[in-house]
Amino acid sequence: MILTVTLNAALDVTYQLDRIQRRGSNRVRTAAQRAGGKGVNVSRVLDALGRPTVITGLAGGRNGLTVRADLAAAGLREQLLTIEQESRRTVAVVEEAEGDTTIFLEPGPVVSATEWRGFLDLYRELAPTASAVVLSGSLPLGVPRDAYGVLIGLARIHGVPVVLDADGAALSDSLAAGPALVKPNAAELERATGTGDPLAGALALRAAGARAVVASLGPAGLLACTPEGSWQARPPERIAGNPTGAGDAAVAALTAGLVAGTPWPERLRRAVALSAAAVLSPLAGGFDAAAYRRLLPLVSVRAVHEGI
Amino acid sequence: MILTVTLNAALDVTYQLDRIQRRGSNRVRTAAQRAGGKGVNVSRVLDALGRPTVITGLAGGRNGLTVRADLAAAGLREQLLTIEQESRRTVAVVEEAEGDTTIFLEPGPVVSATEWRGFLDLYRELAPTASAVVLSGSLPLGVPRDAYGVLIGLARIHGVPVVLDADGAALSDSLAAGPALVKPNAAELERATGTGDPLAGALALRAAGARAVVASLGPAGLLACTPEGSWQARPPERIAGNPTGAGDAAVAALTAGLVAGTPWPERLRRAVALSAAAVLSPLAGGFDAAAYRRLLPLVSVRAVHEGI
Repeated sequence: MILTVTLNAALDVTYQLDRIQRRGSNRVRTAAQRAGGKGVNVSRVLDALGRPTVITGLAGGRNGLTVRADLAAAGLREQLLTIEQESRRTVAVVEEAEGDTTIFLEPGPVVSATEWRGFLDLYRELAPTASAVVLSGSLPLGVPRDAYGVLIGLARIHGVPVVLDADGAALSDSLAAGPALVKPNAAELERATGTGDPLAGALALRAAGARAVVASLGPAGLLACTPEGSWQARPPERIAGNPTGAGDAAVAALTAGLVAGTPWPERLRRAVALSAAAVLSPLAGGFDAAAYRRLLPLVSVRAVHEGI
Repeated sequence: MILTVTLNAALDVTYQLDRIQRRGSNRVRTAAQRAGGKGVNVSRVLDALGRPTVITGLAGGRNGLTVRADLAAAGLREQLLTIEQESRRTVAVVEEAEGDTTIFLEPGPVVSATEWRGFLDLYRELAPTASAVVLSGSLPLGVPRDAYGVLIGLARIHGVPVVLDADGAALSDSLAAGPALVKPNAAELERATGTGDPLAGALALRAAGARAVVASLGPAGLLACTPEGSWQARPPERIAGNPTGAGDAAVAALTAGLVAGTPWPERLRRAVALSAAAVLSPLAGGFDAAAYRRLLPLVSVRAVHEGI
C-alpha cells in the first residue's frame, strides 16, 4: 500500500463557460466538483494503475464531508483526520473558446496544535504499514513549517521511503530529513536553490539531503539526478491540454517504480508517458490510458553526465 | 410581515485578491460566504429598516444548509423548503487593485414537480399572513415558466399585494396576473418591451397588467409610472461602489412604502437614497446607514408628464 498525505485536502470545483467576461456576470454552463489536493490526485492515478493506496491528511467542514463522500464514491480508501475548520475549495474556470484555465485557490483552514498532534498519531499508525509515503502539496496554516521533515523522519524509522512534492520552505526545510525522492518543477527548483540551471539545482537538492531528485520541466520532460546516475527523459511531442495534475501523475509513476525497484530509465519513461497522458485528461488525477500506451515506447531517455 | 420569495436561493461567495491573473493560479486573500439570492437581500434590508420579514423559497444540499445556518446567525426568519438538489453558489471575485468585480453564477438545481407542489402548499400558508409579498430573481430549472404569475394570483386572492423583480419570461409572463409593482432595470425593461425609452417601456408594462412600474436606471435613479402619476427620482451625485444589491435595496424601500401607504414622491426618495447607500456597501443586502440619512434630503423628485 502506498500512503499519500494531503494536509490541505480540497474540494476542486470546475466551471465551464465560453469566455470570461471580466467585470461582468458570467453564467457557468456546467459546474463539477470532486475531491482534490495533490496527494489525492496521486492516489487516483495509483489506483488507476492498480496499486493499492490509502489517502490520509486533514479535511474539515462541509467541504471536507463532500471530499470524503466523493472519495468513497470513487472507491478510494481514505483515512483523513477531521478538523474543525472548513477545507478549502479551488475553483478552475475553463474558457472553452480558448481552452484557457484560470484557477482560484481559497486560503484554507487553520489547523490547531491539538489537531496536528492527532494527525501525527494517525500517521504513526499508517506509515509503518506502507511500502512508500507520498507527501504532496502546501501546508495549511497552523501546521509547523518543518511538518514534512517530521513526517519523513517518522517513516524512515520504519524503513519506509518518502517521496516529497512541495514548494518553498515546505521543500527546503525537509531535505535534511532525507526524502527518498523530491519532485520539484522548474520554478520550485529555482526558488529552492536560486539557480535557473535544472541540473545544478537538482544536484544542490541532493547535496542538501534528498536521495534522488526528479525535476519536471514541462514540455522538456523530466531530469533525474539519483545515486545510480542522471537522466533526461523527454516526451516525443509537445502535448496540448490541461497541465494541472501532470506533476501528480509523474509522482505516482515514480513512486510505483520506487516500490517495484524498476530501473531508473524505465521508471522515467513511464513517468513521462503518464504525465503526458495526464495533460490530455480534462481533470487532475485522470489520464488518457490509450495515450499512455501509445506514448510509452516513444519517450526518449538519455544519460546526463553531471560533470559536463 | 413582508414575505420575500427566493426560488433560486444561493450561497454567495466573495473572493478578494489584488488582480486576476488570467490563465494562472490565483491565491485568494480572503474568502467569505453568506446566504444570497435577491429575495434574501431584500429581507436583509427590510430587517435593517426594522420591518418584520420572512424568507421563503427553495434551498437544497450542503449549500442549502449553509444558507439556512447563515440566515439563522443573522437573525433572519426563514421558511425555505428543502429540495433534493444542491443550491447554487455564486462566486464574486473582487480585484482590489481596480475595484472590479467578476461574478460567476452556477447553473443551480433542477426542481421536481413534487417539490414545486410542496412549495405551493407552503406559500398558500405563508402568503395570507403577509402584508406584501416580494418575488425576486431567476426561476430555477423545473419550475413552471408562469410560476410568478401563479404566486401573484394566490396572494391576490387574499388581497395581498405582490412586488415582482424578475427578468425575461419570468417577468413578461407574470404581468397579466396583476402585480402591484414591478421593478425592472433598464436592460430588463428593454428586453421585456423592445423599446429603449424607459417611459414608453414602463407604460407598456402597466398596459400589460402591472399596477405600477418603477424602473431603476442606475445613476439616473428611478422612473415610476403609477396610477397616481409618474415621477423621476435622482440621486444628488454619482455613487461609486458595488452596484450589486442596489436594486434589491430599492425593492425593499418600495415595498415598505407600499405597505405603509407612503406617498409616491417620498417612497421614491427613500428608495433612491437607500439604493445609493447600498452601492456604498461592499456586500449585497447591506447599506451604509449614515450615507442613507445624508442622501435622503438630497434626492430630487419631479413629476413626469406622460403625454410629453
